[in-house]
Amino acid sequence: MRKIEHIGIAVNDLAVSNQLFEKLFGQPPYKQEEVASEGVKTSFFMNGPNKIELLEATNTDSPIAKFLEKKGEGIHHIAFDVENIVAEIERLQKEGFVVLNETPKKGADNKLVSFLHPKGTNGVLIELCQEIP
Amino acid sequence: MRKIEHIGIAVNDLAVSNQLFEKLFGQPPYKQEEVASEGVKTSFFMNGPNKIELLEATNTDSPIAKFLEKKGEGIHHIAFDVENIVAEIERLQKEGFVVLNETPKKGADNKLVSFLHPKGTNGVLIELCQEIP
Repeated sequence: MRKIEHIGIAVNDLAVSNQLFEKLFGQPPYKQEEVASEGVKTSFFMNGPNKIELLEATNTDSPIAKFLEKKGEGIHHIAFDVENIVAEIERLQKEGFVVLNETPKKGADNKLVSFLHPKGTNGVLIELCQEIP
Repeated sequence: MRKIEHIGIAVNDLAVSNQLFEKLFGQPPYKQEEVASEGVKTSFFMNGPNKIELLEATNTDSPIAKFLEKKGEGIHHIAFDVENIVAEIERLQKEGFVVLNETPKKGADNKLVSFLHPKGTNGVLIELCQEIP
């Protein structure tokens, strides 16, 4: 784990929250992207070496729709940048963490991603992500 | 805002969570510190340009005790590194954000800090922090 790649924040309305975070950071999102397989529309803000990802649900089965219904708007996950996601999954499984995606899946922003079960990480949903070359 | 300085995670038992995050990052915390004024014991892990701060409450009036009671363990706040906290507070107030500490206060890890009200930031508790020279 080399750095915080991004923090994912669940929002009700991406257009409204884009304006809010543009005021916060003093710059607009550098990218917007829909990930149909996850049922989300996303936008990304740069913040030095890190990013903030805003996530709006596009259907009621989306994990983000369920999160919003249960907890309301707020921080959804932390993503850490890893050099080799397969090796990192193996290392973390040996350490006793429950890896939700043993085979990494394609995420937003050109990444291979895998999540750790939050029950094993103090309630924090942790994403591992590796840039696709 | 120059980068994510740290993410603060509320935990029930700092000793237990230190072991957990040591396994996650492959290295122990670089610092432990009690902030009596906030009613917390903290530990800090380096992660490249970023840090993770674990927070355990030391009394029942601590904001962390109240958070744990209401929401359980999990992400408590995001802290952004700023060059000039006084100027950044003024800029954000002009943008309509509600600043909880108009005069920055002394936080953990040799920082001047101020928080934004989460009602104005999509439910995310945001801390501004400036290194004390």
